[in-house]
Formats: sequence, structure tokens, C-alpha cells
Amino acid sequence: MPEKSKKSKAKPARKRAHAGARVRTGAGAAALADDTAGHGFDPAATVPGLNESEYNQLCRVGEHWRQVVTDHGAWRQALPVRSDLVATPHQRGRYTEVHFAPGDAPEELLATQQMLVPEGAVDRVRFRLRRTLIGPPLRSAAVAVERLRKIVALAILSSDALSSVAYGPEAMLTVLVVAGSGALSRAIPLGVAITVLMLAVGLSYRQTVRAYPSGGGSYTVARENLGELPGLFAAAGLMIDYVLTVAVSIASGIDAVTSAVPSLTSATVVLGLVVLALLFAGNVRGVREAGLIFAAPTYLFILAIFLIVGVGLADAAQRHFAVPPTPLIHGTEGLGIILLLRAFSSGATAMTGIEAISNAVPIFEPTAWRNARTTLTWMIGLLIVMFAGVIAAVHFDGLAPRTGETILSQIAHRSVGSGALYAFVQAATALVLLLAANTAFNDFPRLLYYMARNRHAPALFLRMGDRLAFTNGMLLLAVLAGIVFASFGGNTEALIPLYAVGVFLAFTLSQAGMSMLWLRRRSPGWRRSIAFNAVGCALSGIVLVISGATKFLAGAWVVVVAIPALVFLFTRVRNYYARVRTAIALGPVDGSEPALLPRQRIAPAPARSAGERASAPAGVTNKQVATQHSSVDPEREQSPEEIHHFAVVPVAALDRPSMRALAYAASLSMPILALHISPNEEEAKRFEEYWQAWGDHLPLQVVISPYRAIVVPVIRYIEALHRQRDDVTITVVIPEIVPIYGWQRLLHAGISTRVRRALREVPRVVVTTVPFHLRRPARRPRASSTRASGKAAGAA
Amino acid sequence: MPEKSKKSKAKPARKRAHAGARVRTGAGAAALADDTAGHGFDPAATVPGLNESEYNQLCRVGEHWRQVVTDHGAWRQALPVRSDLVATPHQRGRYTEVHFAPGDAPEELLATQQMLVPEGAVDRVRFRLRRTLIGPPLRSAAVAVERLRKIVALAILSSDALSSVAYGPEAMLTVLVVAGSGALSRAIPLGVAITVLMLAVGLSYRQTVRAYPSGGGSYTVARENLGELPGLFAAAGLMIDYVLTVAVSIASGIDAVTSAVPSLTSATVVLGLVVLALLFAGNVRGVREAGLIFAAPTYLFILAIFLIVGVGLADAAQRHFAVPPTPLIHGTEGLGIILLLRAFSSGATAMTGIEAISNAVPIFEPTAWRNARTTLTWMIGLLIVMFAGVIAAVHFDGLAPRTGETILSQIAHRSVGSGALYAFVQAATALVLLLAANTAFNDFPRLLYYMARNRHAPALFLRMGDRLAFTNGMLLLAVLAGIVFASFGGNTEALIPLYAVGVFLAFTLSQAGMSMLWLRRRSPGWRRSIAFNAVGCALSGIVLVISGATKFLAGAWVVVVAIPALVFLFTRVRNYYARVRTAIALGPVDGSEPALLPRQRIAPAPARSAGERASAPAGVTNKQVATQHSSVDPEREQSPEEIHHFAVVPVAALDRPSMRALAYAASLSMPILALHISPNEEEAKRFEEYWQAWGDHLPLQVVISPYRAIVVPVIRYIEALHRQRDDVTITVVIPEIVPIYGWQRLLHAGISTRVRRALREVPRVVVTTVPFHLRRPARRPRASSTRASGKAAGAA
Repeated sequence: MPEKSKKSKAKPARKRAHAGARVRTGAGAAALADDTAGHGFDPAATVPGLNESEYNQLCRVGEHWRQVVTDHGAWRQALPVRSDLVATPHQRGRYTEVHFAPGDAPEELLATQQMLVPEGAVDRVRFRLRRTLIGPPLRSAAVAVERLRKIVALAILSSDALSSVAYGPEAMLTVLVVAGSGALSRAIPLGVAITVLMLAVGLSYRQTVRAYPSGGGSYTVARENLGELPGLFAAAGLMIDYVLTVAVSIASGIDAVTSAVPSLTSATVVLGLVVLALLFAGNVRGVREAGLIFAAPTYLFILAIFLIVGVGLADAAQRHFAVPPTPLIHGTEGLGIILLLRAFSSGATAMTGIEAISNAVPIFEPTAWRNARTTLTWMIGLLIVMFAGVIAAVHFDGLAPRTGETILSQIAHRSVGSGALYAFVQAATALVLLLAANTAFNDFPRLLYYMARNRHAPALFLRMGDRLAFTNGMLLLAVLAGIVFASFGGNTEALIPLYAVGVFLAFTLSQAGMSMLWLRRRSPGWRRSIAFNAVGCALSGIVLVISGATKFLAGAWVVVVAIPALVFLFTRVRNYYARVRTAIALGPVDGSEPALLPRQRIAPAPARSAGERASAPAGVTNKQVATQHSSVDPEREQSPEEIHHFAVVPVAALDRPSMRALAYAASLSMPILALHISPNEEEAKRFEEYWQAWGDHLPLQVVISPYRAIVVPVIRYIEALHRQRDDVTITVVIPEIVPIYGWQRLLHAGISTRVRRALREVPRVVVTTVPFHLRRPARRPRASSTRASGKAAGAA
Repeated sequence: MPEKSKKSKAKPARKRAHAGARVRTGAGAAALADDTAGHGFDPAATVPGLNESEYNQLCRVGEHWRQVVTDHGAWRQALPVRSDLVATPHQRGRYTEVHFAPGDAPEELLATQQMLVPEGAVDRVRFRLRRTLIGPPLRSAAVAVERLRKIVALAILSSDALSSVAYGPEAMLTVLVVAGSGALSRAIPLGVAITVLMLAVGLSYRQTVRAYPSGGGSYTVARENLGELPGLFAAAGLMIDYVLTVAVSIASGIDAVTSAVPSLTSATVVLGLVVLALLFAGNVRGVREAGLIFAAPTYLFILAIFLIVGVGLADAAQRHFAVPPTPLIHGTEGLGIILLLRAFSSGATAMTGIEAISNAVPIFEPTAWRNARTTLTWMIGLLIVMFAGVIAAVHFDGLAPRTGETILSQIAHRSVGSGALYAFVQAATALVLLLAANTAFNDFPRLLYYMARNRHAPALFLRMGDRLAFTNGMLLLAVLAGIVFASFGGNTEALIPLYAVGVFLAFTLSQAGMSMLWLRRRSPGWRRSIAFNAVGCALSGIVLVISGATKFLAGAWVVVVAIPALVFLFTRVRNYYARVRTAIALGPVDGSEPALLPRQRIAPAPARSAGERASAPAGVTNKQVATQHSSVDPEREQSPEEIHHFAVVPVAALDRPSMRALAYAASLSMPILALHISPNEEEAKRFEEYWQAWGDHLPLQVVISPYRAIVVPVIRYIEALHRQRDDVTITVVIPEIVPIYGWQRLLHAGISTRVRRALREVPRVVVTTVPFHLRRPARRPRASSTRASGKAAGAA
């Protein structure tokens, strides 16, 4: 085939020129690789691109292949099959299923949706169930369609922040009341302080949304402006915060339900886990559906708060804001600065979730950053109004926190009595608390995605599920939150002290990062921007220190320990991936000019003379052999002629599977050694006889294993061969009987699996499994081909 | 190398003649295969020998290989390593470990004991612990040494039978007393009947021991003389009996302990499981140690029974055998024939374990069968004397069964008071009951071994552990007995009704088989022999029917259902192995004369023209391709030239692991197709660019997978290739990164493992894993070779 080979030689040069034109060079190429990371979530980009030096190295390796091409004819021959199997139908019962369709480019195939349907009956039922629960799979191209309008995004992303109005003020008042009912009046200045904090942090995040239109959470902002370690600390804080958000929200939501229906109290943990599972399933279905399901409760809750606070304040206005006497409670502690600070940091938990929007900019409709900023402004406004309103209503109604009834419930009773409206308020509160966990389900996987893109988290978090959701991240969140929730028995109060440290660490680092950004960039108006961010940073930092210090013994120490531990883990992951990337990068080809064929290059082992064993200490001989061929870097080969090899075939009996494995090995054109492990001398003799009867076509080594071990001698023998020549690749060809049904696997010794697993640890050992399938009564692929042949015959 | 090839051609003919001389032909060869099964347990014989036609087939296949040898040069070339690695030292820290030593024959290697020591630190600790618990490994040759003297064998093998004296009489009296204390006098005739039964069955088994010196349990006797199905029924009965023996013995032993120390009652199940674990460990240590540990309690128990019965009967003799009045108990049922039969069958549980010796003849010192027969006679004698003595003592002391105290305890109180002697009697009883379970631990695995040799049980029960014990069988027994024991909560009474059916089924079938043997053989004295066995058979059969009928509703139905279920399972296993044996047997070589090289034989796929895709319906083309090459029988190849193949290399990125896999595939001299799965068009374009940059050395097929699946398209694509040409072997070469530590595996997607697992189901697909090892800071084999080189340099 002269044309063929000429064509193949001509092609690379032409194509390389073309490729060189397309791939940007220098810094540009590196940017190309990182650039794909810039546009929010790419459901496809899991393999990073090559930088310039990697690209050049690839070309050099290819050049080397071309030089050795003439020596290795076989692999350039025509395939016995057509690789473009256009629409090869798959006969399955009465249906013809099309697994592949022609792609857009002439040389590409398209995997169809039908392919995802599994084969087995049980698998199919499971598949159908899954499809019913979470909907049909979505194409990657659909990622652009799944964007949210502001009105829906507000509901989804702010349920966390807004719902914290239900427990933030209460947490603050609960601390104050320790100093007696007189201390409750200090709620007003503390509330003002927290409102200022909300405003500052909110304005600060408005800057972030504009500066990071691709969704700059605290992690991204801190990492890009302060460095990797601050970024990781922010990420660790956020991750803990998200897990706690889910656990706390579900715990307090279930609390609201069980206080209405006390008989359910014993089932708290089970109920919580069921809600968690529903949230997980709802979120896996995807963003849009989640939005529709989860938008209503947030608005109902907003409505409820406005209703009860409005009515309450209207009543107070009628009383000309005369404060009724609060129920007298005697303090157990003096009203010191520590108590005030503790109350302040408890009240500041109302701010959790404020960062959600800045983290999730890309899920907004275009122009995403502008819509996100508007939504953030709305959210901050609502949060401040609702928070301040609740504080004011409490003050002017003269309420005090008490066990058995929440503050919100007290306001509601005061404002709307105990009828249907009260029930509506309580139901909306319970719902929004349960659904606040949903925000974390949106943000946690996204954070992991960003981290995985920077190789700080396992690559599996880059993968979008068939519904375009980050299923893996959601699963991790659900599992972690479930563990936390269950191990605290669904007790909200026990969880609260762990809460604020993570959030405010992330806030502080994020605002610090923004300040640094403006300081560097000095774009128009940078002084104003930096002022916003610096104030946010300072205030968040103060709250962080207060939270950590005042709640340390109450539980914050867990978070203080967990954050550095997580950061350590992230860096380990990062280091591992860096090491892998260096290890798997292409390198210079061994030897500048192409060498001869491997079979001509490998020196054969010294011939074995009859008396040698007795005369010379064999250990020395082996050591010398090992010395001669010790190579520096294992598994560096990048070109066919660099690979020198021979095959080892472990043979238990001379039956058809083994014979097929021997035949397969022989067809690979490399020297072969057969290996037989025998439990004793007689068995060995018998096997050797059979081997001679067969014709002794291949060298055979028999190992007597008097302790009846089989796997260990095989492994150790191959290791010993490897030590002799660690530059030679050993292909271990293992025959394996594949039974029809799973239970039948118990009837086989499973030696092949154990050998394969153990050999995985030995360098430069390639394991080849030659399967021998026991025949099914009617195999589907065979049925299909016979049917096709019948049709073809009929047509002819 | 002309000498080499000449030698290799000359050798087979010579060796075949030699082999032909050694292997007996015709029925002799078949006998050779089965003969090894004749001498008790062979720790080595797990692979059956070839019969004559199989042997001839092997020679014909070998002949075919020789004819094609000239076409395939490479695999006859010299190996680059020395296969006889004599005493290759393994440097491990400061120690040099020798894994291989020269074998007895010049071409054999010997695996040393040192090899069994694992590599990892944790594994080593576990290994040491194991060695401390169960002792060092034993060579297969040691199996002959591990034989038992009669005095030890009696203790081990009869603890089951003798200990049943502790519950058999009591079970009978408990049934009788339902008809009032007056009915207790019927114990004497029933006892005489059971004694006659014991004598008949005992004499019958004496015949078995002589006729089956290799250990003929009920299974073997029934199978060889009555046929396979009766043999399996006997085996099923015995297996259930063994499991129940362990559960009942431990339950009643623990009962005895807890009635002495009532505070332990709540821990019954835990205590029982601990005892089970100890028994298991003791038995895994091996036969001899087990004998020394377990001999004492049996003799102490015999002593105890003789003591209390002797003193009791001596007292009665002083009273001139006047029977004192029994405590008056009013009957709740009339004394009908049914009640008497129930009492009889309950009393007959004292016979369980009588078959143990006949089952275990080979563990006796030579001459095994003679020693076994003597021991059996002793045991029957002891059993009859003890059983009759207990019945007599109960009668002459005027005792009646009552809750809270066992009959034996009552006799002991009457005879030796409540002092130290009483405590000794109770302790001996408790110990022997616990240790009766030990008999089952000797017999159950042995039964499984015999069954596995006939392919009625999984082959793993053929394997002797490193202590020459059938560890797998013991483990199965321990697990099953543990489940039964725990699920009945350690309640003896609930277990007893399940007990007799299995034993007496085995007894009956065994004696029937012996009768048939004598009838066929008609050796001298066959009439006397047949009389013994026929009487034993008839009596056992009567007890079987009585037991099954009278206890059916009380629990025997479980066994009546379980026995056929087990037999069904055994036949399924047998059928499966038969199918495997047929499937894996060598067959005639495809085509009489050797064909050309594979690469010249495979027709290339029709060339792809640019317009073809649009013009012709591609599905039809593919069907035609499938029609042309549809072969009849998959995976029949037994000779290198029959294997036609090409390689598919799934490539995710052009990094070093993938490049090495491509280079490896190219070095195999077969056509190659690279396969890339891309999530979208842009990624595909980028990859194709890199491919061009590399030089486009190999055909590449890109599949776009818009739903982001990776594994499924790879599998489906290879399946589609297979359907095109199901006579061609597809070698799938998968690059795999092997991380250093286990946790790092989480950081990889594990695609290669999933692809390999899924491809196992596709016929004629060989999976080759090309590993890429991330480098450990210091690898042991490397250290060894550098150290060796240093030494060699020093010596030079």
C-alpha cells in the first residue's frame, strides 16, 4: 500500500502547521489552558490543555515515532473493522437501538442518549426509576439554558440569609436575658451594629459580584488576591459553614414541625434525614426545577414577617411607641462587655448565607453580574428590614425570649392572634428553614468545582451529572450534613456555637482580598471601593475574633481545629496532583536517534549450562545481571522501539483457556516463558509430562510450592525477573474463565483476579487478561448478527 | 541459533515417547486420574489428570503448533532474563530473604517458607499474629506425619457420640413423663431397643471401615453403591447434622455453664460465639494439637459417668434393686403408641456422631482401617454401657426429669453428694458438650473435601491451609453454626427437633449402600456382612420415618425442606463444573493444515470513501460486514496463527501514561485504533489538534459524548467493533496510573477499572492494563539492585 504510507507521512507536516496556527504560543497558550476555567462551569472541561513546552514536547515525541515507523510495520496496517461504525444498530429483543450516530465533523461519532440505557433487566428498572425521579439526561449544551431569572434566583439564593432572621435575633436575646430582663433594651444598639455590619458586608459583596462575573466566592477572591493559603482557609471555612447550614436549618425546621405536632418528636432524626434525601433529589433534578419548587416558601416567609412586624409596629404606633413592661426575669450574670460581645456574635449568625449570590453569579440570566448585583441589593435590603423589624417589634411589644415558644411565634401571637394567619406564619417559617438548606446545595458543589479546577479537591467534583448538576458534590454535602445532624441528634442549640467562625473567616478573607484587588488595580473610583471593602473586612474580622473567643469552649474549638485540618488535606491533594502532572508529562525521548527493533536489542540471558548451577554461586550471577541493566527512571517509554519485552504466562493446566492464553501470547511476537506452580514433585512431574506431550514449544519454569500457596510464588517470581532486568517490560498473560452468572464465580478460585491485583504494585509489569467465556444459551450480540445475516441472505 | 532450534525440534519426539511410556493408556489413564483420590486427602491434587482422549488431543494441538512454528519466530527467541533465578536474594532492610531455592529436579524451583511473609508492616504484624495463633505453616509432605494414635483418636472422634449420653436419655424421659410418672418405667424397654439399634448400626459401620479404608463416610458409600443422588442426599443430611451438632453442643454446654453461674445468662450468645471462635482456631492449628487439647475432657467425662452410674448401681444392689417410689407426676396425655415412638426417636439422638470414625479412617496411624475398626468397637462399647447405665441408674434411683436440673445432675447428687466430686462431674459434662462440636470440625470439612473432589462442592474446599487443615470448610461450618446458634438464641430445646432426621437419613443410605456392596461383591462371608448391614439399614430407616413423622411440626420440616434444597444446589454445582470441563477441554484445531500469518490473513475493512457516508445507508454496510465473518464458536483458538487481532487504545489525553500505552500497543505488531471520548465538539477539536501535532501516527476515532458518559461509550464502541468481526480478538490497552497510597486512588476517576470490569462480559476482548507507577521515595527492589551493584563493584 504505497499511497497509504505516503499519505501518512505527508499528513503530519501539513497538520502540524495548521495546528501551530491555531494554538496560541507563549503565555497565550498557557492562558488558553486556564481560560476555559473563566466562564463559570464548563460541564466538559475536565482535561487541562497543554502549555507551549508540553505542546513542543508532544511534537518532538511524534517526530521520534515517525523515524521508527518503518521498523514497526504492523501497527500501521489497515484495521480489519470499520472504525466509523455509523449507526450500527443494536438488536435488543424486538427493538433496534442506535448507540452511535455520525458526529458534526466527518471523523467524529456521536454517542446517543439510548446508549445510557443499561442492559440488564434489574439495571433497567433502576434506570427508569432514576429517570422518573430526576428527569431525562441533559446535554452539555443545555447548560446555558438552565439560567435563572432574578425573581427565582432571589428565592433560591437568599433563603439561607433571610431564614436566619428566624433564629438570629432570638439567639442574641437569649444571651442578653442571662443578665436579666433589664438587659434586653441593649438589643437596640446591638441590632443597629449588626445592621451596619450587614450593610457594610453587603456593599462589599456588591463589589465582588462586579469584579468576579464568573462567580467569585470568598475562595476565589481570597486565592487570587491574597494567595493560595488564604484562599484555602476561606474555602475550609465556607465548606464547614455549608455543612452546618444544612444541619442547622433542617434541625430548626424539624423543631418547628415537632413543636406543632409533638408526637413526631421521637422521629426527629429520621424526619431530618428524609428531608435531606428529598433536598438532595430535588437538587440533582437540576437548577430550574429546584427554583420552581423552592421559590414559593421564601416569598411566603417574607410576606409573613412583613405581616406580623407591620401589624406589631402599627399597634405600637397607636400606643405612641410606649414600651409595655417586659416580664421580670432575674439575671444570673452581670451585664459585662463579654456578655454583650457574645450577644453580638450570636445575633450576627443572622448574616450567614449573605455570600451566596456572589458565589453563584453564573446561574443568573445574562448579563449575569448585573442581575446578580441587583438581586444582592434586594436581598440585603430585605434582610436589614426584616432583621431590624423583628428587633423593633420585640422591643416595642415588650417581649422576652422564653423556652417553649420562639420569639417569632410570640410576635405572631401578639399581631395576628392564634387563628389561620398564625398557622400560616409558623408554616412559612418552618418551610423556609427547611429550604434554607437548599442554598448550601447550590453553593457547596460549586465551591468544590472551583477547588477541583485548581486541583485542591478530587477531580470527580468537576464532573456534572447527566442532569448537569454537580451530583458528587451534592452527595458529599448530603452525607456530611446527615452525619453532623444525626450525631448531634438534631439539636439546634448544640450546633449554633459551631456556626459563625467559618462564615466570618470567609467574609474577612474575601473582603481583604477585594481591598487588595482595588489597591493593585487602582481603577476609577478605587478609593470608594476600597473603603467599602476595608470596612467590611474590619467589621467581619472583629466578629470573627469575637465569635471564636466567646464561643470557643461551647463548640467553636471544633471548627478552629477542623479548618486547618481541611487546609492541610487540600494542600496534600494539590501536591499529589502536581506530582502526577509532573510525572505524566511527556519528556525527551531516550536516545537521540531511533534504535533498532527491540527483539534485536535485548541481550539474551547467558545460556544455561548443565553444570553451572553446582559450580558457580547463582546469586552472584543474578546480581551481576541486575547490575548490568539497572535503568534510572522506570516506565519512561514513549515510543514503541523503547519498549523491550517478553511475556510470562502462568499456566495451571493445559486446557483450552490456558492454551488460548499461550496462543495469544505467542501471537504477540515476543519471547515467552510459561510458569507453572506445583504443590509437589509428583504433580510437577505429571505437568511436565503433559508439557512434553504437547511438544515443549515454549520454555517452561516449574516452581514447587510445598506450602501450597499459588498467588505468592507467581508474584515473587515475576518480581525476581523484574529485578534481573528492570528495563524490560514483562507482559503477564493470565487466562481467566468468565462464568455466566455471578454466583458461579464462587466456584472458581479467583486466582487471576488476585494475581492481577498483586501485580499492580510491581513496576513495568503489564497484565493482560485473556478471558474465556462460558457460553450463554443465547447471546445477544450473536443473535443480532445471525438475524442480520438472515436478512442479508433474504435481500440477496 | 541453529542448534537451539534443532534441539527444540528433536526434543518433543523423544519426550513424547518417554511420556507415552509413563502415562498408562486406556482405562489405566482414567484410573490414574481417579487413583490419586483414593489415598485419603491429598493436599496437592486439585487439578485432575487427563484421560486418554484428552491426552491425545493435547498431542494433536502440539503437533499443530510445531507446524506453525516457523511463521512465528519471536516467541521462540531466548529470554532476556534467566528463568532459573536460583536463590535470587530479596534485600529487605537489613535482611536478605531467599524466596526461591533449587528444586529436586534440575528444572524446578522451590518456593521457600520465607516467601509467605508479606511485605507491608501491617500485613507482617497480622502474619505474626496468625503464626502465633495457629503455628508455622506445614509442608504438604507433613500430611503423613499428622496421624493419630487410637487413644487420641477415640477422644477426638467419639466426643460427639459419647457426649450425647448427656442429653439422649433425658430427651427420651422428658417425652415419657408427659404421660405421667407411671410411664417412666417404659424407659427400660425403649432403652433396650435403642441399645440394640446402637449395636446394629455399630456393627454395620465396622463393615464400612473395613470396606472403605480411605474413609468412607455415608456420602461415599451411598454414592458408590446406590448412585449419585442417594449420595448427595446422605451428604446433605450429614452436613445439616454437623452444623446442628455444633450449635446444639455449644448451646447445651453454655447452658451447663450458665446454670452454674446464672449471672452469665444474658451473655449466652456472645459466650457461644467466643467458644465457636476458639474451636475454629484450635482446629485450624491442625489435627495433632487439636487431639492433645481435646483428648482430656472426653476421658474425664467417661470417668464421671462410670463413677456416678457405678456408685448409683452399687447403692441399688445394696437395696436388692428395690425401686424407690418416683415423685408423682400426673400425665397430660395418654401413653399411646405415638408417644412411645416420639420418646424412642428422642432417645435415639444419643446415636448422633456414631459415624464419625468411619468418615475419618485416614487420620489413624497405619494400618489405618484396622486401628479405626478397633477404636469404633471401643466407642460402641462405651456408648452402650454408658447409655444403658444412665437409663438403669435413673430407673433404680426412681428419678424423673424435672426443669432446673438435668438427669445427670440428679444422678450425681444421689451418688456423690454436692461436693467436689459433683463439681467435677458437672464440669466434665459441660466440657465434653462444648468439645463434641469438635468432632464436627473434623468431619464437616472432610465431607466437603470428598464432595469437592467429585465436583459437588466448590473447588476451594479441596485446598488445605498452610497448617494442612481444611480451613475453608472449617470456616463455613463455624459461620453456619454461628448463624444457627445465634438465630435460635442459644436455645437447646428449640434445636433438638431438627436433629435426628439428617443423621438417620445418612445412616439408612449408608447401610443400604453397604448391603448393595456385599450383594454385588459376594466376597467370603458376604451373607453375614449383608445381614449386619441390612438390619442396621432397616432399623435406621424406621427411626428416620419415626423422627420425621413425630417431629415434623416441631421443626423437622425445616430439615425436610433443606435437604432437597441442598441436593439441588449440589447438582447445580456439579452441572456447572461438568459444563466448564467440557468447555475448557482441548478440541480439534481449526483447519487441518497450518495457515499463514494472521496479519496476512485478515481482510482489511473496506476503505472509507469521502462520500460514502452520505450515499449508502451505513447500517446495511455494517450488517454485511457482520455477515461475512460470523464464526460459529467463540474463543476456540488454541494455536497462535488462529488468533487474528487488533488493538484499541482508549486515550484521554496525550500524556506519558497514554503515550506509553500507545507505544506498548505499537510494539505488539498488530493494527491499532486509538479511541477518544470527548464531551463536546470543542474538546474534540482540541484533542484532534494535539493528535495532529503528535504526528497522527495511528488511526484515531473520536466519539462525542454529549451526556458526558465516558465508560459506556467505550464499552459500546468496542461491542460494536466486536459485532462487525466476531472472529477477531480485540486487545484493549488501557493506561492506568497506580498511585502510591490507597487514599490517593480517590483522586483518580477509576475509569480504567470500570472499563476493565465492563469489558469482561464482551467475548473475544482481551484487556491489557499498562500501569504507570507514581514513584515512591525509595523503592525496595531498586535499593536491592543498587546495593548488589555496590557489592559487585567492591568485589571486582
